[in-house]
Amino acid sequence: MAKGTVGSLGEFGLVRELVGRLTTTDDVLVGPGDDAAVVRAADQRVVATTDLLVEGRHFRRDWSSAHDIGRKAAAQSLADVVAMGARPTALLVGFGAPPDLPSDWALEFTDGLREECDLVGAAVVGGDVVRSERVTIGVSALGDLAGWDPVLRSGAQPGDVVAIAGRLGWAAAGLAVLSRGFRSPRVLVEAHRRPEPPYDLGPAAARAGATSMIDVSDGLVADAGHVAQASGVVLSLETDRLTIAPPLAEAAGAFNLDPLAWLLGGGDDHALVATFPPDFWRPEGFVVAGTVLAAGESGPGVLVDGRTYEGPSGHDHFS
Amino acid sequence: MAKGTVGSLGEFGLVRELVGRLTTTDDVLVGPGDDAAVVRAADQRVVATTDLLVEGRHFRRDWSSAHDIGRKAAAQSLADVVAMGARPTALLVGFGAPPDLPSDWALEFTDGLREECDLVGAAVVGGDVVRSERVTIGVSALGDLAGWDPVLRSGAQPGDVVAIAGRLGWAAAGLAVLSRGFRSPRVLVEAHRRPEPPYDLGPAAARAGATSMIDVSDGLVADAGHVAQASGVVLSLETDRLTIAPPLAEAAGAFNLDPLAWLLGGGDDHALVATFPPDFWRPEGFVVAGTVLAAGESGPGVLVDGRTYEGPSGHDHFS
Repeated sequence: MAKGTVGSLGEFGLVRELVGRLTTTDDVLVGPGDDAAVVRAADQRVVATTDLLVEGRHFRRDWSSAHDIGRKAAAQSLADVVAMGARPTALLVGFGAPPDLPSDWALEFTDGLREECDLVGAAVVGGDVVRSERVTIGVSALGDLAGWDPVLRSGAQPGDVVAIAGRLGWAAAGLAVLSRGFRSPRVLVEAHRRPEPPYDLGPAAARAGATSMIDVSDGLVADAGHVAQASGVVLSLETDRLTIAPPLAEAAGAFNLDPLAWLLGGGDDHALVATFPPDFWRPEGFVVAGTVLAAGESGPGVLVDGRTYEGPSGHDHFS
Repeated sequence: MAKGTVGSLGEFGLVRELVGRLTTTDDVLVGPGDDAAVVRAADQRVVATTDLLVEGRHFRRDWSSAHDIGRKAAAQSLADVVAMGARPTALLVGFGAPPDLPSDWALEFTDGLREECDLVGAAVVGGDVVRSERVTIGVSALGDLAGWDPVLRSGAQPGDVVAIAGRLGWAAAGLAVLSRGFRSPRVLVEAHRRPEPPYDLGPAAARAGATSMIDVSDGLVADAGHVAQASGVVLSLETDRLTIAPPLAEAAGAFNLDPLAWLLGGGDDHALVATFPPDFWRPEGFVVAGTVLAAGESGPGVLVDGRTYEGPSGHDHFS
């Protein structure tokens, strides 16, 4: 077994090193090292979500650092908690790795998890380390609703406004840049490597009376479609309300692509899409991008500038 | 894409089919289909644990049915919750599969998850479906302490008795049978395919005043060692207190092996090892197998019949 690998550390040595990188919070009653963790759930309800990330499908070790992969893996589940209107409290992480993985990779990955958790005041409270051919990451996140109702996908009402917080299309543009062998615009590549979900705006939207909310992970049109289906309504989006940031325009120009395809179809930025009653106050950071209409004869769905969107609208993991 | 595969169903089609197999409980406030689930945590604390299982390492599709793999994957995490003294409430499941996996496999796997959850009154409340080369399963379980203190690994006291509930060595013997190309004794093969953790005895031990508890997944000596280290004591086990069941004796005889090696070193049956004050009532199902001693000059550890155990004592995932 090569020196400095997870195989040479062994399972228990590796766990000891990883746990040594973690910090704790007041919500953690029993942290890593027992059969299970115990986390405070003052609200008498707990929000819980899980994601699985596989090397080569969700990340590439030659395109992203271990640190960025840790941050991205944490962000993906933390954003799901926030999209319910909850504050994330805890993360559980399953980590599969080949024995020849450098142990530094595992440690930097753990640093990334911890730093992303720090942004929201959450802590890594438990995990599992196993051997696998490819690096495989299972992340589960818990959250606290602090007495507020969870904001579901099913509450959008005709007459509501549709508002978006966070970046759209940046991660997809960054992936397009990397796929073509480039490393710039750097801000897009960074956005692909490490999303910046608008964490605070999920609970803020819940307190402001959001009627529905979703985290954009499949793409704006696809995820707006999930809200439309669950609520039995039409979400009508207006593209002139969406800002095309300069780096997106630049990259789209260089590749001769329509940047709107990234904004409408790109996931992985973990923007929040929420609906609000029309006269309600909306938290700063949410930008109105459309309205909710009653479903007509063609049923629930999404309109983009009044028409059904024909572009690439989402991601099927098995396609 | 072949018909009848997860690839032909597609991610969203597969999720719809899988969710259609699930049932719910009173603890599930928001079930599958939103950004996250919401689960009751009446106690204002939630027990949480996660495991990662990879095809070829933790299970083989030619040795176990999809149904048994679902039951085993659920059992592994549910047993961790029970070992804290808690009642499992919810399971979250990440499922990675190659596109050519028969969709029936995924459905039967889900049936197995559900049926194992039914044994303890828990429900599958969420998940994630992704593409991966090998079948990969991330399972996280939540549980409720119902007002009782969690039973940690660190509470064993000199003078306590060590008691064991559930099978020891059966799964290891079953694996040995399969590894040698046999299919019987059938009860051992079944024990490998599908553990039967003594779920009710975890909360019962907590109520009976257990001072420490652990779920045997690495092997009796290894897991007793984790309690010894965490508590700073010696767990002294007496092998004449352990029953060697007839099928274990039979298989050991056939392979010319010492069945005690399976009882002391085999994991995956998810027996519970707990320590109790000597004069306390112990729940029926727990069998006394030793005592807790103060750590001497050689520090915390495990003694088997008064000596340090030299046999195979556990499992390192990277060895």
